[in-house]
Amino acid sequence: MKVTLQTQAGLEVFEGKNEQGHTILLGGKGNAVGPMESVLIAAAGCSTIDIIMILEKMKQGVTDVKVEVQGTRREKIPRYFTDIHLHYIITGEVKEKKAEQAVNSSLEKYCSVSLMLEKAVNITSSFEVKSEA
Amino acid sequence: MKVTLQTQAGLEVFEGKNEQGHTILLGGKGNAVGPMESVLIAAAGCSTIDIIMILEKMKQGVTDVKVEVQGTRREKIPRYFTDIHLHYIITGEVKEKKAEQAVNSSLEKYCSVSLMLEKAVNITSSFEVKSEA
Repeated sequence: MKVTLQTQAGLEVFEGKNEQGHTILLGGKGNAVGPMESVLIAAAGCSTIDIIMILEKMKQGVTDVKVEVQGTRREKIPRYFTDIHLHYIITGEVKEKKAEQAVNSSLEKYCSVSLMLEKAVNITSSFEVKSEA
Repeated sequence: MKVTLQTQAGLEVFEGKNEQGHTILLGGKGNAVGPMESVLIAAAGCSTIDIIMILEKMKQGVTDVKVEVQGTRREKIPRYFTDIHLHYIITGEVKEKKAEQAVNSSLEKYCSVSLMLEKAVNITSSFEVKSEA
């Protein structure tokens, strides 16, 4: 897997690009998503892909997933995360028990990002299921 | 630090948002940057912020940084990275020795993303310095 990063004018924003040419912008001074924020987003995105796939295999009618992620950083440099909490808000005709199984399967077995981070960080999760409005 | 992730229509693309409202799009089926790709971009972005700051403190005239990142994944699930290589292409009036110091300082002391990943992944680096065209 290959990606490139390229500084933009002013050297404060960086464009990351994958092999298909899709891009994201990151930055270090509040003018774009920061690198550490993007790691939290990656953990949420990776597990959400799993959760949707697992719920669909279970014939659950998931229509929307939102994730609220809280990362707690070390006080000292390097300020990596000590704790990450992922809260999943799953919308649709989804049974609580199935949602629980999907979240746990992702975080314990499948999600490459969270299972990699878990070697360094204490990762916890919670979830709620909402019916369609 | 807080972020949110929200599925978009079709449940195949996800918008990640930070507290300032800056966003990135991730996806799992080749229609956006993937979560694992975004982790490589985060490692490159985090260290590039440090490298630019360190080179500027050293009064080096850095005008551009590009990073080529290669990630090697496990064969088995979960397919997190076993190895990440970061190659920095630093452009400007920058002494080789200063560039080397900046890259090493970032990866050994400051970069939160790479120093967190290092607990799980073998991270290596290389660099080249180019004069302005």
